[in-house]
This record gives sequence, C-alpha cells and structure tokens, in this order.
Amino acid sequence: MTINYKKELETAAKSMILVHEPDVLIKMIARTIVHRIKVSHAAILLHEKDKSTYVLDISKGQVGVKIPAGFARMDTDNPLIQFFLTGKGKKIFNDGPFLHDKAREILNSNSDDAIKELLKGALQQMDIYESVVCVPSYFRDELLALLLLGKKSDGSVFGQEELDFFMALASDVAMAIRNAQLFRELENELDKKKRLFFNTAVAFAAAIEAKDHYTHGHTNRVTALGLEITKKMAHQNKTYAEPVFMENLHVACLLHDIGKIGVPESILNKIEPLTQDEWIKIKEHPMIGVNILQSIKELEEVILGVKYHHERYDGSGYPEGLKGDQIPIIASIISVADAFDAMTTNRVYRAAKSREVAINEIQQLRGRQFHPLITDVFITLCQEGVI
Amino acid sequence: MTINYKKELETAAKSMILVHEPDVLIKMIARTIVHRIKVSHAAILLHEKDKSTYVLDISKGQVGVKIPAGFARMDTDNPLIQFFLTGKGKKIFNDGPFLHDKAREILNSNSDDAIKELLKGALQQMDIYESVVCVPSYFRDELLALLLLGKKSDGSVFGQEELDFFMALASDVAMAIRNAQLFRELENELDKKKRLFFNTAVAFAAAIEAKDHYTHGHTNRVTALGLEITKKMAHQNKTYAEPVFMENLHVACLLHDIGKIGVPESILNKIEPLTQDEWIKIKEHPMIGVNILQSIKELEEVILGVKYHHERYDGSGYPEGLKGDQIPIIASIISVADAFDAMTTNRVYRAAKSREVAINEIQQLRGRQFHPLITDVFITLCQEGVI
Repeated sequence: MTINYKKELETAAKSMILVHEPDVLIKMIARTIVHRIKVSHAAILLHEKDKSTYVLDISKGQVGVKIPAGFARMDTDNPLIQFFLTGKGKKIFNDGPFLHDKAREILNSNSDDAIKELLKGALQQMDIYESVVCVPSYFRDELLALLLLGKKSDGSVFGQEELDFFMALASDVAMAIRNAQLFRELENELDKKKRLFFNTAVAFAAAIEAKDHYTHGHTNRVTALGLEITKKMAHQNKTYAEPVFMENLHVACLLHDIGKIGVPESILNKIEPLTQDEWIKIKEHPMIGVNILQSIKELEEVILGVKYHHERYDGSGYPEGLKGDQIPIIASIISVADAFDAMTTNRVYRAAKSREVAINEIQQLRGRQFHPLITDVFITLCQEGVI
Repeated sequence: MTINYKKELETAAKSMILVHEPDVLIKMIARTIVHRIKVSHAAILLHEKDKSTYVLDISKGQVGVKIPAGFARMDTDNPLIQFFLTGKGKKIFNDGPFLHDKAREILNSNSDDAIKELLKGALQQMDIYESVVCVPSYFRDELLALLLLGKKSDGSVFGQEELDFFMALASDVAMAIRNAQLFRELENELDKKKRLFFNTAVAFAAAIEAKDHYTHGHTNRVTALGLEITKKMAHQNKTYAEPVFMENLHVACLLHDIGKIGVPESILNKIEPLTQDEWIKIKEHPMIGVNILQSIKELEEVILGVKYHHERYDGSGYPEGLKGDQIPIIASIISVADAFDAMTTNRVYRAAKSREVAINEIQQLRGRQFHPLITDVFITLCQEGVI
C-alpha cells in the first residue's frame, strides 16, 4: 500500500491549525507520523518561549522509546540544537533534515574540525533518542521545534518523497505551533482580565462592607453560599450550569450590597433601633446599587440580582414587590444566602441564631419569603453537610 | 513561464494562517489569485456569521469588475448559494468548482426541470459577477465563502491542475477564515473584559465620589487631565507611549481617591474648618486606597499612583515624604492634575480660583510641590489651549 503524501499533508495541516493547545497539537502530530507513516517512534522537542531550552513533549510509537529522564530537555548549547540554530549545520544538509547515515559519512570524509565536532555531538544526541532523522521546524528565522524520527517499521530506508513530506510537515507544524502560541497568549490575557475584574469587585465590596461594622465577612459568606446553591441547581437543570450564569451569580453575590455606599454611616452603624425614615433609607440600597452599576452593559444580569435580592416570593418584599417567578432566579438565590448569613451572625439589635434554628426558619418561610425550589436545594445542602 | 501550483499553495496557506483579520485575509487571497494566477479579477463572498447572508468582500483585478451596488450581498436563497448549500448542486460537478461553460452544457442536455432552474439562476449570478469559475470554501459542512474568478488574463481556458489548485486553495481559505474568526471572537471577548474592568472602576469611583459633596466630577476631570499630560509626555519619551503605562495611568487616575471610602462622611462633608485630628483622618485616604487594592497583583503600578499622589517634589508631602524622583512618575502626573482641578473648583472653605491664577500657581510651585518635567508639559498644554 503506497501513501499519498500530498493528501496526508493536507489532512494533517488542516486538523493541526485549529488545535490551539500546543500539548494536544504535539501529541496529534506524533500520532500522525507514527501511525500513518509507520515509523517506530517520533519525538518532538518544542521550544519553550522566553527560555533558551527545548522540551521533549512526546515520544510515541509501536515500540515505545525509552528516553532517560535527564534528556527530556535540550538547552540551546546542545549540539543538535546548535546544528540548526547556526547556519553552519543547515548548509551541510542543504536546508534538508539531519540524516543519521549521511552525517556519519560526512564525519568520515570532512576535514573541518569544528564541523566534525558539531556533527559528532549531534549524532550522540540522535543516538540517545534512537533517532535516524531530525527535521527542524522554523517559523521565519525562529527554530520552534525539532521532529525526531525512529526507523521505519518495515526496516527500509526513508526515500526522498518521505523526507520531502517530513520537511513540509515540519513547516506546517511551525505554523500551527505559532498559531497555537498566539491563541494561548490571547487566552492568558483574557484570563488575566477576568481575574482583574473579579478581584476588583471583591476589593470594592470589601471596602464598602468595612463601613458597616456589623457585617464583617458577610459578602464572602453570601458568595460562597450562593455558589454552592447554584452548583447544586446546575446538577438538576443545565441552564444553571452555563458558565455565564455562574459568573453572573458570582459577581451579583459580590456586589449585592454595593448600594450601601449611599446609605449614611450613621444609619448603618446605629446601635439604637432605627426610625421609620431610617428604615426607608436602608431599603434604598438595592436601587442605589442599580444606579451605580446601570451604565455597565455587561452587568445587565448582575444588576437584576442586586436590584431584587430583597424581594419575597409572596410579593411582600422591596423595591418592587415582585412575586414568585417574576423575581429573577439570580436574586432569589442571593435572597436565601443573604438571609441565612444574616440570621447566623450577630447584629447590633440581636444575637446570632444557631445554624439549626436558622435552617428551620428558612424551611418555614419556603414559598413565603423564599423561592420553593431554592429553599429545597438549600435544605438538601444543609442535610448533606455542605452548608 | 509555468506556475508551481504546489508551491504557490504552500506559500499562500502559510501566509494566510497567521492573518487574523478576516478583511485583510480576504484581500490577501484575492491579490494572490489575481497576481500569481493571472485572472482578470477575483471576488470573494464571505459568510456573515449569525446572519443568513454572504457579503462581497473584495473584487480586485487588472481590469476591475464593476459589481452593481445591489449585488454586494447574496442571501441564502440566492441560486448560486443554494447550489452549494444543497447536496444537489455539489453532485452535478462531482464536488468540484462550478464552471460556467460546463453549467451551460448541462443546462442544454439535462432534462430535470428543478436542476435546470437552479443552474439557470446560478448562471445569471455568475454573469453579474463576470465570473467563469465559482469555488466553494467549506469548513466541515459549513459553507464559509465562495471564490468567484474572472477569465484568465491570457484568454486560455482553466486546466485541471488550475482547478485542483483553486479547490485546494478554497479549502485552505476556509481553514484560515475559521481560524481568523476564532481569533476575532477571543479578541472581542478580551475587549469586553477590558471595558468591563474600566467601566467598573469608573462606576465605583463615581459612587465613592458621590459621598464627598464638593468634588462632583473631580475624578473624571483628573482622569482627562492626566491622560492629556501623559499623551504629551509620550511624544517626548516613548516609555510613556507604552499602552500599559497609559492604561495604568488611566486606572490610577480613576482610583486615586478610592480611599476616601474609609474617611467618615462627617469629615468629608464638614463645613467648618477641620481640626488637626480630622486632617490626619483625611490624609489617611491614600493608604486606605492602597489597603483596598493591595491584593490585586495586576494593579501594582496603579497602587503607586494611588499611594503617592499627595507626595511633593521637595519632600513635604504625605504619606511618606518622598522627594524628587523617588516619587513614581505616575503619582507625579496625578498630583498636577489633582491640584489643578482642586484649585479651579469651589470647595466648602474657599471659592474656585480662575484658570489663569491656578496655572500661574502651579508654575510657581514647579520643583517645590510639582515635578519640573510634568509642570512644563502641563504649562505647554495650557499654552496650546488643550487644558
């Protein structure tokens, strides 16, 4: 059975380019070489960006080659790397791959001591990897990777068409690696920005909470409870398993009391019972939160959580007196978490209730203050000891 | 001169894959076809994601084809699109390109009315685009694009090798488009997160500023001034032109007074002169800001701006009494912007100074309160009428 190298190459290049995880990519390439081209094994040395080292990413094959642990990386002063980094080595093989047999011939016939030294070192490396062909993978002038290939499975010698194929493959590999690297960089940048936003929300929430002397750690506890409830709900209904729902819930928990910044400290920290006017002020905090966040388009869902976390299932809550399923689910989740934490911590006007009393009270208020579904999930989590 | 199609393809594919702007990509492909393969013109219809339409992205050539404006897009019910979307059309040309000549032959010989109708409509479209070959570009089962090619410049008919080349090119194009789309999505996501962070910082800064009744709009004005100063500095020294410096300065301006959240409202809004103890409280705001932000690793540089924006060049500022170049430049910039805005707005204890008086005062304090370089940049901006 002959192999259509052109077609193999097209297929390989095509599948490679949309793989944006360098590790997965390398595994794929090695697998392609070993299984389609039938070599005993293939190893790939991948350049570590920002480091002057090449790391062995995989070595697969029917036989399975045993690379000594210490040889799992090559520094740039390694003679095999040097061979391709310096123009010197490239010239010897006319920009082609490094062939073990040919290198041996040149070693015996060439008289240039420096070249002989380099070849000798490179050959030693080839022996360690039990490799007979080494193909460089360049992107522009940068050596991104080296493919190291074992013998052909049928014992024959590589032909020119096969060597051409490896060179073309190596060139595609370089492109795919570069593409994957660019993707990775962008993804890392995205992760960083996500973290930055979350950390900023956490920091601001903590700063605002610090004004209210009696709620130390409240935001963090509500966030933890809210996330547990949502995780449990996600098992039952995949809408809640969407990363975007989880993220919105997370941010909404962090920011649910952000509007307290607009409530005078004198009211927040008052030890005597509040007057009716003062209660009215306190009850403004959800809408103040909405005002702070409303210009941020990306926080549309989060704002619903902030706005309605004091609504009650029977319609007796504030600011709008929404009922039942009119209340956004994100707000109903925060409502349970918020109430449980308020009950179980000391407030200036009353001592903390015990965990059991609080759980019982929430159960009693199922369908009145709290959404029945979320109450049930909460109670289950309590029974399982998660809360 | 014969063309090495295999090599052309390799070169084209290689340059394509790292172009992540679909528009640029399309231009590049059209250019490649027209100049290397020598056709009169090439047009590319690109699928608009989330819309059932294909948009003409470019039509280049030595002749330059005139596409009537109304034909710059094709909906999915267009017979040429239908031809490739339905398996029907694909079968007629054995998965190959749509050839004008061959379509005409089939039209005359085929007896299936539905097929004749489709072919007739498709041929009309080809005529509008003065196109003799139409090559579909699929990614998996999705029709991403159509390449429309004019006649060969030398008047001859396309040979099989050329048609094979176009099919292979179209397949690479699909991959490149898909890759570019994925990149774009990631970049959009990144932009969104950047905006989200900025908008959140703006919203919190505004909320905290709202507590201090006499500084309405202060943060926005300081930010605008700070950015103008930095832009001017960037012309003189490219360190300040780095996007990361500009971003840090921007965020630091937004957050410079964030620590005021920890200063009692009764002090911030006091109408009578402040006592010494109250001044001490006010002067804590930079360090309170540092405490709020310190856990956010990405804000390291920003924190320097927040911490030291009340330092003075002669060492008489707070919190640490740093001198001259010990003061981070980001803080020195905020210092000038902050002082100018404070001087030119009403405060509870004094009326606003005029623009001229304030500028003069800052000039007088050059090298004492303010960094000489930044004072000079500020004065220049005032003279130029920017401030």
